[in-house]
Amino acid sequence: MSFTEFPSRLLEDAVNEFASLPGIGRKTAFRLVMNLLRRDSEEVRRFGESIIKLHDEIHYCKICNNISDTEICNICSDDKREKSVICVVENIQDVMAIENTRQYKGQYHVLGGIISPIDGIGPSDLKIDNLEEKVKEGNIKEIIFALSTTMEGDTTNYYLFRRLNKYNVTLTTLARGVAIGDELEYTDEITLGRAINNRNPYQQ
Amino acid sequence: MSFTEFPSRLLEDAVNEFASLPGIGRKTAFRLVMNLLRRDSEEVRRFGESIIKLHDEIHYCKICNNISDTEICNICSDDKREKSVICVVENIQDVMAIENTRQYKGQYHVLGGIISPIDGIGPSDLKIDNLEEKVKEGNIKEIIFALSTTMEGDTTNYYLFRRLNKYNVTLTTLARGVAIGDELEYTDEITLGRAINNRNPYQQ
Repeated sequence: MSFTEFPSRLLEDAVNEFASLPGIGRKTAFRLVMNLLRRDSEEVRRFGESIIKLHDEIHYCKICNNISDTEICNICSDDKREKSVICVVENIQDVMAIENTRQYKGQYHVLGGIISPIDGIGPSDLKIDNLEEKVKEGNIKEIIFALSTTMEGDTTNYYLFRRLNKYNVTLTTLARGVAIGDELEYTDEITLGRAINNRNPYQQ
Repeated sequence: MSFTEFPSRLLEDAVNEFASLPGIGRKTAFRLVMNLLRRDSEEVRRFGESIIKLHDEIHYCKICNNISDTEICNICSDDKREKSVICVVENIQDVMAIENTRQYKGQYHVLGGIISPIDGIGPSDLKIDNLEEKVKEGNIKEIIFALSTTMEGDTTNYYLFRRLNKYNVTLTTLARGVAIGDELEYTDEITLGRAINNRNPYQQ
């Protein structure tokens, strides 16, 4: 089916909206809309409203730029968390990934992107100024760079290092090495090389 | 990522709504919602409203049960189409599929399902009464059964045949045979058997 003609403009509008999402083709979009059509009116209204609310009511935390229902996010407003360590990440998915490990109890700072000349994203497009402000205030002991191990990530790390190195703060990055479960044979040589250079004392 | 914890309830709600769609897992749902978050407010509002409108404003044609923006659908209200032939289909996707062939210029009747004891769908769950009414009025010359070639389709065909056979109307079904582009070697034996029995004069 190529759907040259829809029996209803409302149906066509909804299909077009779903088809605008990444990875959703027109056939899938049509199938999703047909599924919505079979549901209760109340359920469909809730679906539509959840999308509208998402944009109208959501906040970005004034301190860390993480997504939040309130002006200050749950992490920044949690008194039990270490205030003097900030983990710098690209986006909120990364915050969620690190939170899911339950290993980190400090603060975050969401850059909202990564320096990428190819995509036209420079330092001024990222939330770097207010990170520097926080460091300038003098209460931060450590900044952890937790960016992707790509060229863009390395570039951003280097830029942040140059901006923040003049302050009295420890700058660290995530440990690089062989991922747990990976076979040495299939580990790329750069990762393996770094893993040898940064070897740790053996722990029983 | 297992997304045990979301930084925002609004975000979680939207992800849950998308994940309720068929074939959309939680990871995909999250990716779709993140895509919406990056869009303009206006665009997202339009997306949400298209879903709400879909349910609140859409009509089902009073004559044929096809989906429509008006009380009577475009096909039923088109004076150029043959009024005395009705093609009986399971759902609106089938109307669209047949319309896309541009080969049919009659009316439709959408049953809204197919008789399927396994799914608890009986004749009373389908729009059969008003099909019979139309036939009873005496202006219909031909009814085409255009249902799937499955057990459920055959059952429904047989039921419709029993209900409508007493009226002065020709009952036909779609031609069954080897699909265009199919190799004989891989055609199932029932289809191939029917294709031999219902062979047509060779046309150059």
